[in-house]
Amino acid sequence: MRKSIATVSLSGPLSEKLTAVATAGFDGVEIFENDLLGGPLSPEEVRLRCADLGLGIDLYQPFRDFEAVPADVLACNLRRAERKFTVMERLGADLLLVCSSVAPESVDDDALAAEQLRLLADRAAAHGIRIAYEALAWGRHVSTYDHAWRIVEQADHPALGTCLDSFHILSRGSDPKGIADIPGEKIFFLQLADAPLMAMDVLQWSRHYRCFPGQGGFDLAPLVAATVRAGYQGPLSLEVFNDVFRQAGAASTAVDALRSLLLLEESAGLSTLPAAAVPSGFAFAELTAADTEPLRGILQALGFAHTARHTWKPVELWEQGEARVLLNTGVSGRRQGPALTAIGVETPDPARAARRAEEVLAPVVPRRRAPHDAPLDAVAAPDGTEFFFCRTKQPDHPSWTGDFTDVPPRALPGQEPGEQSATIRHTNHTNHTNLINNIDHIALTQPWHQFDEASLFHRGVLGLEADDSLYLADPYGLVRSRAVASPDGGVRIVLNIAPAPDAEGARLQHIALATDDIVAAARRVRETGTSLLPIPANYYDDLDARHELEPEHLATLAELGILYDRDENGEFLHCYTATVGRVFFELVQRTGGYRGYGAGNAAVRLAAQHLHQH
Amino acid sequence: MRKSIATVSLSGPLSEKLTAVATAGFDGVEIFENDLLGGPLSPEEVRLRCADLGLGIDLYQPFRDFEAVPADVLACNLRRAERKFTVMERLGADLLLVCSSVAPESVDDDALAAEQLRLLADRAAAHGIRIAYEALAWGRHVSTYDHAWRIVEQADHPALGTCLDSFHILSRGSDPKGIADIPGEKIFFLQLADAPLMAMDVLQWSRHYRCFPGQGGFDLAPLVAATVRAGYQGPLSLEVFNDVFRQAGAASTAVDALRSLLLLEESAGLSTLPAAAVPSGFAFAELTAADTEPLRGILQALGFAHTARHTWKPVELWEQGEARVLLNTGVSGRRQGPALTAIGVETPDPARAARRAEEVLAPVVPRRRAPHDAPLDAVAAPDGTEFFFCRTKQPDHPSWTGDFTDVPPRALPGQEPGEQSATIRHTNHTNHTNLINNIDHIALTQPWHQFDEASLFHRGVLGLEADDSLYLADPYGLVRSRAVASPDGGVRIVLNIAPAPDAEGARLQHIALATDDIVAAARRVRETGTSLLPIPANYYDDLDARHELEPEHLATLAELGILYDRDENGEFLHCYTATVGRVFFELVQRTGGYRGYGAGNAAVRLAAQHLHQH
Repeated sequence: MRKSIATVSLSGPLSEKLTAVATAGFDGVEIFENDLLGGPLSPEEVRLRCADLGLGIDLYQPFRDFEAVPADVLACNLRRAERKFTVMERLGADLLLVCSSVAPESVDDDALAAEQLRLLADRAAAHGIRIAYEALAWGRHVSTYDHAWRIVEQADHPALGTCLDSFHILSRGSDPKGIADIPGEKIFFLQLADAPLMAMDVLQWSRHYRCFPGQGGFDLAPLVAATVRAGYQGPLSLEVFNDVFRQAGAASTAVDALRSLLLLEESAGLSTLPAAAVPSGFAFAELTAADTEPLRGILQALGFAHTARHTWKPVELWEQGEARVLLNTGVSGRRQGPALTAIGVETPDPARAARRAEEVLAPVVPRRRAPHDAPLDAVAAPDGTEFFFCRTKQPDHPSWTGDFTDVPPRALPGQEPGEQSATIRHTNHTNHTNLINNIDHIALTQPWHQFDEASLFHRGVLGLEADDSLYLADPYGLVRSRAVASPDGGVRIVLNIAPAPDAEGARLQHIALATDDIVAAARRVRETGTSLLPIPANYYDDLDARHELEPEHLATLAELGILYDRDENGEFLHCYTATVGRVFFELVQRTGGYRGYGAGNAAVRLAAQHLHQH
Repeated sequence: MRKSIATVSLSGPLSEKLTAVATAGFDGVEIFENDLLGGPLSPEEVRLRCADLGLGIDLYQPFRDFEAVPADVLACNLRRAERKFTVMERLGADLLLVCSSVAPESVDDDALAAEQLRLLADRAAAHGIRIAYEALAWGRHVSTYDHAWRIVEQADHPALGTCLDSFHILSRGSDPKGIADIPGEKIFFLQLADAPLMAMDVLQWSRHYRCFPGQGGFDLAPLVAATVRAGYQGPLSLEVFNDVFRQAGAASTAVDALRSLLLLEESAGLSTLPAAAVPSGFAFAELTAADTEPLRGILQALGFAHTARHTWKPVELWEQGEARVLLNTGVSGRRQGPALTAIGVETPDPARAARRAEEVLAPVVPRRRAPHDAPLDAVAAPDGTEFFFCRTKQPDHPSWTGDFTDVPPRALPGQEPGEQSATIRHTNHTNHTNLINNIDHIALTQPWHQFDEASLFHRGVLGLEADDSLYLADPYGLVRSRAVASPDGGVRIVLNIAPAPDAEGARLQHIALATDDIVAAARRVRETGTSLLPIPANYYDDLDARHELEPEHLATLAELGILYDRDENGEFLHCYTATVGRVFFELVQRTGGYRGYGAGNAAVRLAAQHLHQH
């Protein structure tokens, strides 16, 4: 279907908004009146700009407080409308949005509203313009879509139809099934917005918290499906008022916006995309740093071995069990200290995963490849982290590990790797117990304006499912946190957002490593002389008060700085390394079916990390 | 009365919070458990630290989900409580806050709740500890203060009393009059928090939006007065959960917090402060810049004359009508381009105004004074702007203008001022019409974390009244805006807060100058070759649609870039100069009793300013 977006959904001046909308790939725009009024482009110039960009002007909006008013007010309102028709003719726009009135002088009289809207439609028709009448959720007398439709039906004018808006419909708890009762040709427009489920004043909710479909808590697909089934022929158009998007870059917001529509179309059954290839686990996590020495020290303390190196890139492979970490010293200019720059996920079908990602506008990462390198598709998440679609050491697909050459155990820096079979290498490297099984989860702090986009990206592109958002108390503000995971928990990613817009360097990232014996794993770290994050004794007094743990067990946890949590399914034990650059490691042990990430311990952990860094 | 604050109200680690609380001048603290758990200080060390700082530990909190539970849960809860009593003994705290339960296993049975709380109080008493039971507004079965009191009454134990919390009481719409029915000695604690009036989920409202008394919409004074009348002897204690305060500096937040309590005590009739000396107008606005040349150009274009210079400081006085602008080239190191650094207000009693300001903790500005300088008291607002309490050219008080020496008209730069009488100077400087009457208002963009503090400062210290908050749409985000003004409008200050935390330099300030003939004043600016902010033609098309203005009048407004607004009392015309550093000027003409600031035009003006600067 045709796809549009209201200019109010993006930041900046109108001309930059239009460029962003066209570049993202939309077909049209709704011109939000204030964007026209505040800019230097005349309506004719806007028309020309849109034509040059290949954008249709699908709607001009909003026209407020028109209907069901006394005669003298009606005269003023019709005069006001005529002036707007002139602007629309200059713009080349032929559809005007009229919102149900909030004016105190309007009266509760459907017949009068219908009569005056018929008059307006008649005037509009003389200019070749049509009117789409929409119920605002906080309209004075008309606040539901079925009520607005009854008035349109009563007015019975070919130039008058209704506009449906998913926020106004779903925020009121209206049932979209009734859309089936509206003839499709009388649905002149469909505006789409999602929103987090909140119990708050609906006007404030609408003005500050709207978000793109799939980013909030509304179920938009049935509404869209019902509208299309009714025979609606117009565009799917986004209209989002959001405090964060108002500040973010228009270009990236426009892409996120279009992605949300593509995914909505798919879930409403209106289009087919390559099915999501849900990843089953992490293939690797890649850390990039000019100086990888501190990371090597921590990896060694955690029991990792440097097993291989890339055949021609400055990348080392470190392994333990199924946990693989790449250390990359090929630092590009803008990156400072160690940072987590890429994640490999095990996927059943790398090519399909990449096709789906590309079709929903995930930026494909251009790769330098040598002729013999394994094919490896990657896309960039909104925070810049690259996701590689892998099949590690599977017979049906070339493995990225084929681009690596084994290194002999305890190779000295600079020493050339010898020729060794995989079997010998494996034997040589298991001279100590593998206490780490795999990567349990990865936590990425998002740029402050990209939290909702990131969550939708991971769901829509990778096929992960999102948990609820929650807040973690940092000593210097609340950290919003939301996990996305595969249904079986094979891939878990925790998205955090720092309290305030902050320097790039402060966006911490961490790799959590799964173990079946956290006490042994933590002791091994200690024995190498590497410290774990110290946790205050007061925490263990409280742990004792809350959970009757064995005194000896409690003493061990306290000794090693291991935190403890419990849910209805099982237990969770976790501890932390020091932070290097933006990166730290966590050891985690899940027992039973514990699903979380120890959120109840986050305040204590964050306080300890602040203390440790000062 | 004794004054306390809960540690959760401030940012940072516990030790820094305690220092900030003591330095501000509080008598005690509530220790919020998470602040203890996350820190390295043992309870004994916290006790010692508080003793060293002269702070009492007035409350330990919170103890959750205790009462009205099955026997096995009760046993766990009593065990948990015993552990907390041990911590409290180590801390030297003798009052524990117990919040009404939100646990699903609790039952709706007041008798059971009373019985179990009696048991808890008995155990507590054995440690010399008392229990303060509080109704959370979202408690599962107990959510109002009178219900909590009935349970406490029924339990009838000397170590069990109730804790009143203004947020929980007022957010539920409960009438605080019922507090009179509670014997004062059974009110063990009083927690105070304000909040903006919002229709939203009360738990989210409480966790993110609480603010200090006087910063929100609740009327706390009657509640405090009723509690004290009932015989309450404990402290007034602040407990504020606020997303912004969590990120702001603890030291300044603690001072703002104590100021709010001092003002609340006054308004509840519990203390007497020097009465506010409400200012009647602006004496001057002072702009500081290393290079004042661009400002001189704009002032000349606006019709100001350089009339005098300070006897020994690098400060020039520019005048027109009763509008006075000081240009100060004595730039301190940290200040960059032109900025508005000080405001003089005309006050009926400068000494009393300064005494009041000092008593409510406004930082007194230290001044370098020569022996013959007029006495001039000044305090700093939260954003650093200095406020001077003036009586300009009044017979009953030395005037600050006495420290200035007249300069001859059209003095060349560097030329020494001649000796002239005030009469001659006045005559010489009125060789062109005074179109500007006075300063209409001053707008100051606040640091993002100090918006509520600023508004309380201007009300509490200066005696101004606050309008409602509103949002203005900037192309790059919403600007929150709130005006404070004297009842007669003689002093009006608009406080804005930029969308996101931003660089110091982006915090715009402006001086609005009142004229009775904005068209003449704007033309005069144009005639000097100085440009006014251009306003798009589209704005005037819309103005024509909304208001039937005379076509000629409309054309004049469009020609000069004058914006137009109207309310039920009158009209408002305004236009803007270019921005120099952080500063620009506005010309405003009010007719009738128009009270606002042209908020409806802000989006267009802000867009035009962005465009003009790029």
